Amino acid sequence: MQTLSVGLGERSYSIHVGSGLIDQSDLLLPLLERKQVAVVTNTTVAALFLERLTGALARQGVDVVRIVVPDGEKYKDWRTLDSIFAELIEHRCGRDCTLIALGGGVVGDLAGFAAATYQRGVQYVQIPTTLLAQVDSSVGGKTAVNHPLGKNMIGAFHQPRLVLSDMDTLASLPERELRAGLAEVVKHGLIRDAAFFDWLEKNMDRLLAREAEALSHAVLRSVSIKAEIVGRDERESGLRQILNFGHTFGHAIETGLGFGTWLHGEAVAAGMVMAADLSRELGMLSQADAGRIRSLLRQAGLPVAVGGIGPREMLRLMGTDKKARAGRVPFVVLERLGAAALRWDVPPAVVEGTLSRLTA
Amino acid sequence: MQTLSVGLGERSYSIHVGSGLIDQSDLLLPLLERKQVAVVTNTTVAALFLERLTGALARQGVDVVRIVVPDGEKYKDWRTLDSIFAELIEHRCGRDCTLIALGGGVVGDLAGFAAATYQRGVQYVQIPTTLLAQVDSSVGGKTAVNHPLGKNMIGAFHQPRLVLSDMDTLASLPERELRAGLAEVVKHGLIRDAAFFDWLEKNMDRLLAREAEALSHAVLRSVSIKAEIVGRDERESGLRQILNFGHTFGHAIETGLGFGTWLHGEAVAAGMVMAADLSRELGMLSQADAGRIRSLLRQAGLPVAVGGIGPREMLRLMGTDKKARAGRVPFVVLERLGAAALRWDVPPAVVEGTLSRLTA
Repeated sequence: MQTLSVGLGERSYSIHVGSGLIDQSDLLLPLLERKQVAVVTNTTVAALFLERLTGALARQGVDVVRIVVPDGEKYKDWRTLDSIFAELIEHRCGRDCTLIALGGGVVGDLAGFAAATYQRGVQYVQIPTTLLAQVDSSVGGKTAVNHPLGKNMIGAFHQPRLVLSDMDTLASLPERELRAGLAEVVKHGLIRDAAFFDWLEKNMDRLLAREAEALSHAVLRSVSIKAEIVGRDERESGLRQILNFGHTFGHAIETGLGFGTWLHGEAVAAGMVMAADLSRELGMLSQADAGRIRSLLRQAGLPVAVGGIGPREMLRLMGTDKKARAGRVPFVVLERLGAAALRWDVPPAVVEGTLSRLTA
Repeated sequence: MQTLSVGLGERSYSIHVGSGLIDQSDLLLPLLERKQVAVVTNTTVAALFLERLTGALARQGVDVVRIVVPDGEKYKDWRTLDSIFAELIEHRCGRDCTLIALGGGVVGDLAGFAAATYQRGVQYVQIPTTLLAQVDSSVGGKTAVNHPLGKNMIGAFHQPRLVLSDMDTLASLPERELRAGLAEVVKHGLIRDAAFFDWLEKNMDRLLAREAEALSHAVLRSVSIKAEIVGRDERESGLRQILNFGHTFGHAIETGLGFGTWLHGEAVAAGMVMAADLSRELGMLSQADAGRIRSLLRQAGLPVAVGGIGPREMLRLMGTDKKARAGRVPFVVLERLGAAALRWDVPPAVVEGTLSRLTA
């Protein structure tokens, strides 16, 4: 097991990365204000890991409330959240109860937002069971639910007390989800660490073959990069926005195709190709490097363009992005491999050019 | 106009108390990140003050989104919140938009929670238009909506950027709401300031006659006391709990009678008589002082006991209070007039004795 500390003052916490962590209740016990936890998970993950987790806790005398929600992004809404609140109230969970999010990003966002707002805030622990959640949503404290009019429109910043990233959970992860998680791994190299990008080019095959050592390295390197950025800008007022590389395009793709048609990581992959193209067009990124980005994502089995949404629709959707201010849309661009910057002044014609090349 | 500063580090803000503040857009303008505000109010308050507020802002070139929700505690729920989010999204309010809560406690809680969670948090300003909201919810940053299974179960701590308490709004306040607001005014004297309690005994008639000078003093003294307490314990981990004097009983009364049957202040008044009785029974408060509390609340036209809920039902309802931990219920008691303390060890028999005397 390796441990990374996320430094956020009194909200600092640890991320443990290793195997068999789900069974190690001793990692959790010292954090509990009271021996009562509510585990929020979905039907798919429950079948795989819920008994292991609750068994380990119950053997230590912890009272475990199990809250199993349906599987899927479309359930990341108020209705599901409301059912979580009802279970918590019915089981008399108080402010000293600890929530545990056992699952992927959807479960983490839901359970995290429930923890942020139940009785104005209770503590929570994340046990991410997908590569995407391990490398992305387990750092940063972002929680949210979707609104019918926009993704992640309702949420809060609420840091977990602890994150357990158990490599065991990646063994059973569907192939498509593994690949989607790799999109965010690649992103971390692109925006902050060219050497890590080089490593990914050399080791993509090992990652796709799920070699534990390679996966561990990719997870640790990703969370280190993200933690360093979040530590400097917890509330996303500046630097942190570079983590949204590819996401302005990606969110528009997700909304345009309908939530759940593409996985988040797939949309981000295509979005990163667009953002790289934009960077190249602005004279920052070389043609060769834009090509390397595209090749690596293609090697990971990820989409590098999108069909079914035209440039005009993409532009409209990007105008409702949460980051848009005064009608202007910010873009994260690459100054070179490993260095990103936020730009508010990208000419509309350049954006349209990129969209015309990469959407249809 | 008099101003009180609420000291909460980087979340500090000012409360202005005076007349005609609604028209003074110069108080608001310097705070706006962008000249766009969304005013959340209800149908009743909109008819009285919305034009004055929006007119003053529009004359300064501010784009004003008007969000008018139905009037009443029963609308302090997810459905109403969702309609606020929909308006914000449809009007393309971004993270730099400022919400303004124009109304009483329900509007403040709703708009405040909307501000806390819309796009993971935007800033907001409170313009409380009831005495209760001016003396209570305008300090402390508590925001919430009700859940069908419990009052204020879902919420967040989110401090306003500014509070404008305009005495003009109290002129049209229904008599019953004025009296309900006085319950929290009395509470502030009881828990922290015996001299203010004395002043209230001498000036209750002037307050009921709505003398502006007396009301201003009562509002300023109340927010000063509350701000001092909140400043020492923003997240309600200790001292702040004394602000819940009378509220454990009061919340049970509100839930037991059905939300909206009694006003919050009415339930708190009866709850304070119960908490005073408990304090007397525990040998802390004198019989004479318990009598003064009861007399003052009666003079304010407030209930000092409750019918329609028996002791057993009250006990059950108190067990689901947000403050309950490990099945135990904390009570705020008075050690004497002007000094309150939190007690976790009140014997059940004492609570039952109080309930048998003051419920039926």
